[in-house]
Amino acid sequence: MDEIKIFCPASVANMSCGFDVLGFCLSPVGDEMVIRKTNSPGVKITKIEGQDLPLDVKKNVAGIAAEALLKEHPTQTGFEIEIYKNIKAGSGIGSSAASAAGAVFGINELLNKPFTATELITFAMEGEALASGAAHADNVAPVLMGGITLVRTVDPVDVIKLPTPNELTAVILHPKIELKTLHAREIIKKNVTMEKAIKQWGNLGAFVSALFNEDYDLISRSLKDEIVEPMRSLLIPEFDSLKKASIDAGALGFGISGSGPSVFALTKGKDTAHKVSKVINQIISSIGIDFEIHISEINKHGIKILPN
Amino acid sequence: MDEIKIFCPASVANMSCGFDVLGFCLSPVGDEMVIRKTNSPGVKITKIEGQDLPLDVKKNVAGIAAEALLKEHPTQTGFEIEIYKNIKAGSGIGSSAASAAGAVFGINELLNKPFTATELITFAMEGEALASGAAHADNVAPVLMGGITLVRTVDPVDVIKLPTPNELTAVILHPKIELKTLHAREIIKKNVTMEKAIKQWGNLGAFVSALFNEDYDLISRSLKDEIVEPMRSLLIPEFDSLKKASIDAGALGFGISGSGPSVFALTKGKDTAHKVSKVINQIISSIGIDFEIHISEINKHGIKILPN
Repeated sequence: MDEIKIFCPASVANMSCGFDVLGFCLSPVGDEMVIRKTNSPGVKITKIEGQDLPLDVKKNVAGIAAEALLKEHPTQTGFEIEIYKNIKAGSGIGSSAASAAGAVFGINELLNKPFTATELITFAMEGEALASGAAHADNVAPVLMGGITLVRTVDPVDVIKLPTPNELTAVILHPKIELKTLHAREIIKKNVTMEKAIKQWGNLGAFVSALFNEDYDLISRSLKDEIVEPMRSLLIPEFDSLKKASIDAGALGFGISGSGPSVFALTKGKDTAHKVSKVINQIISSIGIDFEIHISEINKHGIKILPN
Repeated sequence: MDEIKIFCPASVANMSCGFDVLGFCLSPVGDEMVIRKTNSPGVKITKIEGQDLPLDVKKNVAGIAAEALLKEHPTQTGFEIEIYKNIKAGSGIGSSAASAAGAVFGINELLNKPFTATELITFAMEGEALASGAAHADNVAPVLMGGITLVRTVDPVDVIKLPTPNELTAVILHPKIELKTLHAREIIKKNVTMEKAIKQWGNLGAFVSALFNEDYDLISRSLKDEIVEPMRSLLIPEFDSLKKASIDAGALGFGISGSGPSVFALTKGKDTAHKVSKVINQIISSIGIDFEIHISEINKHGIKILPN
């Protein structure tokens, strides 16, 4: 195989009680990438459509991730990357992660898979570090492994793929406002009370158990975040009313995707997802912000190889 | 049924990454209680053997828990309680929890089970509040439900019973030194860094997943506590060398039971448990402290009804 075309899905990180560790992969939204072998060693980004992003390999998350991989697998083969962006940078649904993960996934395929998923996550994280100022894995992990993932630790990378209850459905709202990840990181406090920390890990433990048991009631009771959400939600227009209306419409839970401005609701089944989507649409329409809403299954497979 | 005799097992709370939420029930160590109906309403503690504890119902955890139950189920029937203590108060393996849980379990049986396990936990917690100054459920929950339990929240009580991997075995060391729960609580800091809190909930999520998947390697990687153990372990003689020797002998993890002074190791299988028990014995013998060591399966059933 000399060329590969892939679909690189968006993802949701910082799932409520799983701040910095839990993420899941989306189905309908994603970039496409074409990666092909060339005869001159090294990585080149030859085309980016859909977004104004640097072609310079050292300044592009896909380039940095690709070079991190090739550093561990020296080869005379070179690679050209084309990126067709649909996920807007800064939207909070893993735009940089899709590119970083796509680059290392594609090159690994073209090299006949010398690396494991865990190793690919490690390389992709180097791209993420450029985008957000910190090497985190909670977006690249679900993109590369599919489903819902828990990042136990990043040094070394230890990621667990959790089960996905069949009817679990996500509603994603992307209010098109500017919100830099770096800024959203700054407002997080360096310390947390022991009381709130205990609540958070009690909820996270319960949430993991609920995924295994397909216990939607427990998913709903445990999908909470009293630590980060109260601060970051202040940056998101109408957060409280969006959340309340979603829960009232039957959502299991509602939270901030990544560091925002996108938000997500989880529901049991598509019918409820459509109801939640409708109330979200009403509220966000009323304040005159441009936005997109997506209804998505949890994407159990992650990156998908497309026919050329 | 007018009289019931029960075995009320010891338990381990504050399991490493599950501080304040995770606990498990032990098999070989426990108290016995006899509870019988009488014609004069109210609760009387008529006998306590094995420990010097108050017979006054208002000053005894079993009495307080029993009265909490009867407040929600007024009856003309009275109850006499006899307690045969084997679990030493202050040992860190749920001495007060065994008595509180036993009292409400026994009375509930004699009343033909009007209450659910969750309700019994709520009553038993009132007894625990007397013993430790805080109404916590991480000992009474595994005693009443059996196995490994996660207390998501105590207000209202929401406890999840987690799966018990078949070969999981505990080694318990009780160094016979005085260590008041209240004192051990005081040295816990009120705040924790976000970085450590995230590590802890990453580990707890991974640990829960590992229990479902019977993944002993992941149990071992995730059974850690960088928040409370570094402080509380200072109160326990030879903690660091006991921990290192246990891990070297094959233990999956090692931590403080409850608020100490007891410590526990978890192993895969009995053979390793015996090896761990041996190295613990050597270390603790060498410093001249009186002690007990127990090897225990995880007790999946909790309180057991004994033949009269």
